[in-house]
Amino acid sequence: MKESFGLAKLIRSILALGLAIVISTGGFAEALAQTDPLPSWNDGATKTAITDFVARVTTQGNADFVPPSDRIAVFDNDGTLWCEQPEYFQALFAFDRVRAMAPEHPEWKETEPFKSFLAGDKEALGALGEKPLLVLVETAHSGMTTDVFAKSVADWLVQARHPRFNRPFNELVYQPMLELLAYLRTNGFKTFIVSGGGVEFMRVWADKAYGIPPEQVVGSSGVVKFEIGADGKPELMKLPKVEFVDDGPGKPVGINRFIGRRPILAFGNSDGDLQMLQWTSAGSGARFGGIVHHTDAEREYAYDRRSKVGKLDKAWDEAKAKGWTLVDMKQDWKVVFPEKP
Amino acid sequence: MKESFGLAKLIRSILALGLAIVISTGGFAEALAQTDPLPSWNDGATKTAITDFVARVTTQGNADFVPPSDRIAVFDNDGTLWCEQPEYFQALFAFDRVRAMAPEHPEWKETEPFKSFLAGDKEALGALGEKPLLVLVETAHSGMTTDVFAKSVADWLVQARHPRFNRPFNELVYQPMLELLAYLRTNGFKTFIVSGGGVEFMRVWADKAYGIPPEQVVGSSGVVKFEIGADGKPELMKLPKVEFVDDGPGKPVGINRFIGRRPILAFGNSDGDLQMLQWTSAGSGARFGGIVHHTDAEREYAYDRRSKVGKLDKAWDEAKAKGWTLVDMKQDWKVVFPEKP
Repeated sequence: MKESFGLAKLIRSILALGLAIVISTGGFAEALAQTDPLPSWNDGATKTAITDFVARVTTQGNADFVPPSDRIAVFDNDGTLWCEQPEYFQALFAFDRVRAMAPEHPEWKETEPFKSFLAGDKEALGALGEKPLLVLVETAHSGMTTDVFAKSVADWLVQARHPRFNRPFNELVYQPMLELLAYLRTNGFKTFIVSGGGVEFMRVWADKAYGIPPEQVVGSSGVVKFEIGADGKPELMKLPKVEFVDDGPGKPVGINRFIGRRPILAFGNSDGDLQMLQWTSAGSGARFGGIVHHTDAEREYAYDRRSKVGKLDKAWDEAKAKGWTLVDMKQDWKVVFPEKP
Repeated sequence: MKESFGLAKLIRSILALGLAIVISTGGFAEALAQTDPLPSWNDGATKTAITDFVARVTTQGNADFVPPSDRIAVFDNDGTLWCEQPEYFQALFAFDRVRAMAPEHPEWKETEPFKSFLAGDKEALGALGEKPLLVLVETAHSGMTTDVFAKSVADWLVQARHPRFNRPFNELVYQPMLELLAYLRTNGFKTFIVSGGGVEFMRVWADKAYGIPPEQVVGSSGVVKFEIGADGKPELMKLPKVEFVDDGPGKPVGINRFIGRRPILAFGNSDGDLQMLQWTSAGSGARFGGIVHHTDAEREYAYDRRSKVGKLDKAWDEAKAKGWTLVDMKQDWKVVFPEKP
């Protein structure tokens, strides 16, 4: 440090840095706070398992110490960071979009699966098999530029409401998990989403909802094509073709492709997260596997082994066998969703 | 801040934070340094174009101000951050690997393209067309786990030497570009590699060479498959199948897929970077497009329009038309490579 750089100036500079310091350094923030970093988690074995793990990997000199650059934490999204009932929110988005697009597509009145869908004929739709659902989702997710798609997601979040909770979907995130994400970042972790959901769908709102920037969101994707548009400007067109399914065995593949190193902490809630949990926990050194178990029909939903969305069967058995931490939503969480803004 | 948190303690905490502060905040680091952040760049229009751009986008209140979260900078690798002559280094790696693997494959003595390659018969190899090169590269890049592959790259970097400079390949990075990367990060930019090279090849050494962590390296990739190995442990197997070519129009697609937002600065050196430069510079607000022009046969190499590796033809014309900054290696750089360690 230059001697001419006086103490008063140094302190002013430091105070001006405020937020940057708090964000970048766990120890200092903790020294300032001295409060419970996980206030929405009830005291008990689950909370202790989390805080013990973080203490072990962040304590210099400890045998389990992990340098900050290797503190990679991955989180499933649907059912782990936000609600996924009565249906994946992204499917509800697709249905709403197709309805909104219908006036511009009079031909849909005579074309399946649009005809049955727009008529609200679930039975006829079901009789068509699994394909129609994919067609509806693809219709809402392709045939437009990436910018236009992102706007359609942002607009939907403003207008749409959850059928049971009557709140915007991006408010139905889990308050205890928000605290966990912040707590990990305060302790030098880099937090990623690794979700079966569409990467371009999540990136629109994930930064604001979770503090996770676009480049730390890993998800499923469709093929995108670079073109020079009619106005001479380059654009990225979304094509109706699946490119990558970031689910089940696709999750460790996605982690390898996008992150390029093995996480030391993984959190999921369903069998779609099994391989991500296996891959994470098979690394050397201290590892943490966590599963959100939906046990709270009153405040959220109760489901697991036989659920249509969020089936937790094989991963449940392996969690028991391998000592992954099962979060009992009803018992472990003081609150589920954040207060209304 | 708590009142009990005394000034002396505050200053001690702050000094202990040292590096974190310098990394996270441009202004403060600059105030401490007050030295030329780009010492290997000669003064002139090129250097001024860079520093002017950074000043414009980082000055609060300026019309061109860009918040730190949107300060995304992307860099091609071959020919932009490190040397790419007389051949892409990754191809030289593949050739060395195939030679090293040959004793375990006696059948290669009678199988093309291995037979001609191992016999050093370039003419016979050339007569087989383009496919043989791909077969050799795929052989070195598949049929093993991601961990085994990463080790083969690390081992090669220790042993192999550049045919002309007689230095390890990862020492043949451009000193002025290292300074540029550090300068941008000091000013709140997040730096990414966006290269046609293999992502798993680059991630092995990019962090040490450039300060760019694995999750900020975007590149071409082969298909990877999740498996439970013979020892019951999960592993990722590299298959001999191309998954994604992050070159030409693939670069903006890769940026969209991995980063999820449009860069404000892009640096390349060849036609393979054209679409990345177009995509970056077509965004609203201040944008910087840069091209490294190889003009220095004495210290490095001189090539452009008709080069086999690193052809700079269409992107050269568009750089002139659009006002992208052309770096003249011979004129703009005081040194090319870092001093030997």
